[in-house]
Amino acid sequence: MITRLSQEEARALLTTSRVGRLGCVYEGGPYVVPINYVLDGENIYTHSLPGRKLEALRANPKACLQVDEVTDEYHWRSAIAFGAYEEVTNPTERDRAVRALQAGFPKLTPVESVPVHDGQSSVVIFRIRIQEITGVGEK
Amino acid sequence: MITRLSQEEARALLTTSRVGRLGCVYEGGPYVVPINYVLDGENIYTHSLPGRKLEALRANPKACLQVDEVTDEYHWRSAIAFGAYEEVTNPTERDRAVRALQAGFPKLTPVESVPVHDGQSSVVIFRIRIQEITGVGEK
Repeated sequence: MITRLSQEEARALLTTSRVGRLGCVYEGGPYVVPINYVLDGENIYTHSLPGRKLEALRANPKACLQVDEVTDEYHWRSAIAFGAYEEVTNPTERDRAVRALQAGFPKLTPVESVPVHDGQSSVVIFRIRIQEITGVGEK
Repeated sequence: MITRLSQEEARALLTTSRVGRLGCVYEGGPYVVPINYVLDGENIYTHSLPGRKLEALRANPKACLQVDEVTDEYHWRSAIAFGAYEEVTNPTERDRAVRALQAGFPKLTPVESVPVHDGQSSVVIFRIRIQEITGVGEK
């Protein structure tokens, strides 16, 4: 039977997951990509090179991040955070977000992280400011 | 380095994956849910109970299905199929789709599958008619 997750369960799934699927709207249709991210309070932080995802989010800031644990077709949980895209350009905020991402993903190489610090990188740091979290599961 | 997958690689990933993330547009924003599906030629078949997903797809038939294999943040592949939502109501087509889903997911119980056959179920069978497949990866 499919049941709704509590806010705590849904948030815990979003907090512990390593990979999420970012959804956005591109030319009126859906676009979904896997991302690594960190959840910090009411914000989801991630980084991206230029491409369709950023183009979509800059045109329509409505975004979602979906995460799940799927054991089989009758044992799974899925949570989704809906929110608004915001580019992180303030140097202090950007530095903090980069450090949080580096802490979460120690494999991030200087190739990606150093240029972010000196402002020379084409890597964009952005957040999804969470407005709503929901989740469902079956077991 | 992130590279584009060939059409064959992207299609193979969509064919072998068991779980995909269905993207659709709900009230102008993205909505993403995990689904089990089968890929049959140029169609993705799946089933759903009534809910936000069907409401979204009936209002805006633009859909996508994203699948991936993620080893870590530098070793992953992701493929996405874009297409149009179509409800499968023709009894012959519906029967064929249900059989394909049952073959792919033997755990589908009579509770879900039998009512589909006799038309008494609230389970909707639908397909995404594929218009474009793309994929990217990093290794």
